[in-house]
Amino acid sequence: MQSEISFAEIAVGMQFSYGQTITDADIKAFSGISGDKNPVHMSDEYAEQSRYKKRIAHGLMSASYFSAIFGMKFPGPGCVYVAQSLKFLRPVYIGDTVNAIVTVTAIDEAKRRVFFETVCKVKNKNVISGEAEIYIPLSK
Amino acid sequence: MQSEISFAEIAVGMQFSYGQTITDADIKAFSGISGDKNPVHMSDEYAEQSRYKKRIAHGLMSASYFSAIFGMKFPGPGCVYVAQSLKFLRPVYIGDTVNAIVTVTAIDEAKRRVFFETVCKVKNKNVISGEAEIYIPLSK
Amino acid sequence: MQSEISFAEIAVGMQFSYGQTITDADIKAFSGISGDKNPVHMSDEYAEQSRYKKRIAHGLMSASYFSAIFGMKFPGPGCVYVAQSLKFLRPVYIGDTVNAIVTVTAIDEAKRRVFFETVCKVKNKNVISGEAEIYIPLSK
Amino acid sequence: MQSEISFAEIAVGMQFSYGQTITDADIKAFSGISGDKNPVHMSDEYAEQSRYKKRIAHGLMSASYFSAIFGMKFPGPGCVYVAQSLKFLRPVYIGDTVNAIVTVTAIDEAKRRVFFETVCKVKNKNVISGEAEIYIPLSK
Repeated sequence: MQSEISFAEIAVGMQFSYGQTITDADIKAFSGISGDKNPVHMSDEYAEQSRYKKRIAHGLMSASYFSAIFGMKFPGPGCVYVAQSLKFLRPVYIGDTVNAIVTVTAIDEAKRRVFFETVCKVKNKNVISGEAEIYIPLSK
Repeated sequence: MQSEISFAEIAVGMQFSYGQTITDADIKAFSGISGDKNPVHMSDEYAEQSRYKKRIAHGLMSASYFSAIFGMKFPGPGCVYVAQSLKFLRPVYIGDTVNAIVTVTAIDEAKRRVFFETVCKVKNKNVISGEAEIYIPLSK
Repeated sequence: MQSEISFAEIAVGMQFSYGQTITDADIKAFSGISGDKNPVHMSDEYAEQSRYKKRIAHGLMSASYFSAIFGMKFPGPGCVYVAQSLKFLRPVYIGDTVNAIVTVTAIDEAKRRVFFETVCKVKNKNVISGEAEIYIPLSK
Repeated sequence: MQSEISFAEIAVGMQFSYGQTITDADIKAFSGISGDKNPVHMSDEYAEQSRYKKRIAHGLMSASYFSAIFGMKFPGPGCVYVAQSLKFLRPVYIGDTVNAIVTVTAIDEAKRRVFFETVCKVKNKNVISGEAEIYIPLSK
């Protein structure tokens, strides 16, 4: 699963994505790791009374798919995660398929930085938007 | 475990924290949920050859403790996570105790928004810094 | 998320609760930790033939929410779990929302002990009842 | 893994046990399910300052091995967990091997109830003691 892509091969507009259907098991696992047992994630009864009407997924779980793309696929192992900004635009419900998409927006050759637009979509609507900055060491 | 804190009680400077020692079990669990099996998290042999020398934790796992504080404790259930920015400043190693600390920096009363400085520290050095924006609905 | 409550502030009648909807993911995770793979928890076919007609949750999983309230919220970190009694009154099914409620029933100031009634309810019916004893060290 | 034991075969003094070494992975998993992220379980730094000096396991995790014995082995599938009392006598540390032992102390033939002494031992010292009551339906 090592990336084949070198810094010189990265170009503006390149895009990678990962899609996953969110289930209760994902939410339970993420709540366990993070400790975030907010009842809007955990309790049907609470969620029904909330603005969301149904239980929703943790925003940072969907965001973690960006980390998977960067670390595994593009740019892949060896790259350094410098920064990530996130706007949580819409709730993600159990059963939604989240598509995380990262697109190269700029490259700083001198500093070996790559900048990405990062979005998560559910049925073509953005649920998370943001930007990421990745550093590609000489060794990579 | 419902929050007792109302919007009117929130004041600039209020601070909450959560601390946890990061272990291999955390990293394995987070890699499973996110799919981020970057060998710098998973492989001792790869990590020894990397800039980090030892396996490191996923940055978004430490960031997930901010979500736990916001959703559980302060402001607590009912608050809406609007935005989070993250700068990954230093690696977090197995055995490090991460202290996630959120501090209110500004309040927009008209828009019912609360702004936070969010940092994760290991032995008093910042490993993650960033900012968060939370919306407090009228119903809360 | 350190508790703010001191021994002197604890009073008879104080109550805290935690609610969660029980799903298959919870049951699978608890069966993995405990090793309790009783088919009444694990097998739809076995459960259909049993007195319960459907798979049920482990009683000690619902009871674990008492531990969460005591250790996290009230009295919070530093308190010592001395004893817990449990009567399993009704089965908990997948989809049930369990509300764990602890209520202070007595305080022994000399011995720094706090006594609680502990119940889990599903739709206002008790599914577990019991009592707990907590010791609050001087250092807390 | 179905029990072969019928009600008539159960006798006072019969004993079953289950032993497991407690690791950080167990503690992380149990904290995730229960929501009990008490820092005495999660943070080396906090635990060092506490009465325990090191991180300890959740008491109800050790108790869950009683449930596994009853539900899996003795009396086995079909039995009904009526009640469990627990006294938490000593802390369980990472690396300790917990031996959960259940012993029949009394049998009520008319009501088809079996009563057990239930203890968890670490190196022959009781860490948990208590009693359990199990109902054996006619169908079993």
